[in-house]
Amino acid sequence: MSDTKTKKTMVVFSGEMDKVLAAFVIANAAAAMGDDVTMFFTFWGLNALRRPEKVKVSGKSTLEKLFGLMMPRGPASLQLSRMNFAGAGSWLMKRAMAAHKVATVEEMIGIAKEQGVRLVACTMTMDVMGLRREELVDGVELAGAAGYLADADEANVNLFI
Amino acid sequence: MSDTKTKKTMVVFSGEMDKVLAAFVIANAAAAMGDDVTMFFTFWGLNALRRPEKVKVSGKSTLEKLFGLMMPRGPASLQLSRMNFAGAGSWLMKRAMAAHKVATVEEMIGIAKEQGVRLVACTMTMDVMGLRREELVDGVELAGAAGYLADADEANVNLFI
Amino acid sequence: MSDTKTKKTMVVFSGEMDKVLAAFVIANAAAAMGDDVTMFFTFWGLNALRRPEKVKVSGKSTLEKLFGLMMPRGPASLQLSRMNFAGAGSWLMKRAMAAHKVATVEEMIGIAKEQGVRLVACTMTMDVMGLRREELVDGVELAGAAGYLADADEANVNLFI
Repeated sequence: MSDTKTKKTMVVFSGEMDKVLAAFVIANAAAAMGDDVTMFFTFWGLNALRRPEKVKVSGKSTLEKLFGLMMPRGPASLQLSRMNFAGAGSWLMKRAMAAHKVATVEEMIGIAKEQGVRLVACTMTMDVMGLRREELVDGVELAGAAGYLADADEANVNLFI
Repeated sequence: MSDTKTKKTMVVFSGEMDKVLAAFVIANAAAAMGDDVTMFFTFWGLNALRRPEKVKVSGKSTLEKLFGLMMPRGPASLQLSRMNFAGAGSWLMKRAMAAHKVATVEEMIGIAKEQGVRLVACTMTMDVMGLRREELVDGVELAGAAGYLADADEANVNLFI
Repeated sequence: MSDTKTKKTMVVFSGEMDKVLAAFVIANAAAAMGDDVTMFFTFWGLNALRRPEKVKVSGKSTLEKLFGLMMPRGPASLQLSRMNFAGAGSWLMKRAMAAHKVATVEEMIGIAKEQGVRLVACTMTMDVMGLRREELVDGVELAGAAGYLADADEANVNLFI
């Protein structure tokens, strides 16, 4: 392990609680070790950055409203990728995490921000799913695939989650 | 971002429409920026490279015929990884993509080829699933894990999708 | 492809048979080419390293016992990520693999160990799911996210599977 400050990027494609959690565990550990970390949220992963409350937005098409309704709003409503059992699995997982003092995804997002981890929302996904800037939590940047690649080119670890 | 031409590889393991789409968005953006991109299609990902029409192939075992019947043929028949709702979700996604002028997976494969992205089919998967060369679209190379690793060793971004 | 010995890491997050298989195919090919390979098993991926027999462990909470019961024990009981059909799909896949002389996941773990691939279990996952050291197969190291990142910083290919 060298002393040189290195960079890490992650594409967070998946919106399941366990995968988003794994992404933040790695991101926060890297940031704690002094790395620059950029997380690029795309497709379902973007749901982790939605505000939990309903945000009034005008001018959405029916299709965009449908996507908005069907997708989870924010980290607390994400489901497990396995053994979800209609929400019981993610409830069990949250209890087990709390019992072992593992931070929730909500808390991990806060820690990530405090540590300077960059949270970037994929503009193409926002377009396709009809998500607007004001529906996402504060402190999120916007970028496309070219922006992601520019970051990845300068990083030594690039993961797709 | 440096001017040096760099290389990228992706293992496309997943055969869901959204993941294959994400892979091609990144691949095509990298190729447009002048990178050499190699996409290594393995397991379910290989379905994205199947010809949409039924190809007559002799000498298949019952097991191989079964795999061939159960797996989607080509990009147009891929399903979403989430909210698929027996195909309704992927139909909605395609409509939303069209409304925002995002290319379909079929179109993205064409763009990738035009830009010189290398599409490689995993020979072990072809063996196990009984897929023959003539069942895949034109312009696909064949290689095994060693071939993938040789490419990955020369690349600066390697993703598993 | 250079002669320099290079390093590879993989986060094995997924516990499905096909994804674990893909991870070991890449790991074993890299090790055969002389690379140092570290596989970091986290979340559901850890199930691939569980002993197949029931291990008597005292002091588990009800929640930990529940996780232990619900999760597969070892590579032979892993399911496919797609077309599982209540186990029929993974049975078909195993038959197709055997017909083409592809090693099983169990055999691949043995080959990996013989080739010096490091198998590392995520301590946070073990805590949260209540898995104990003696429930895992022999030859597994324990580490956290910081340990994984130290390895990834020295590797030229890092995958999240």
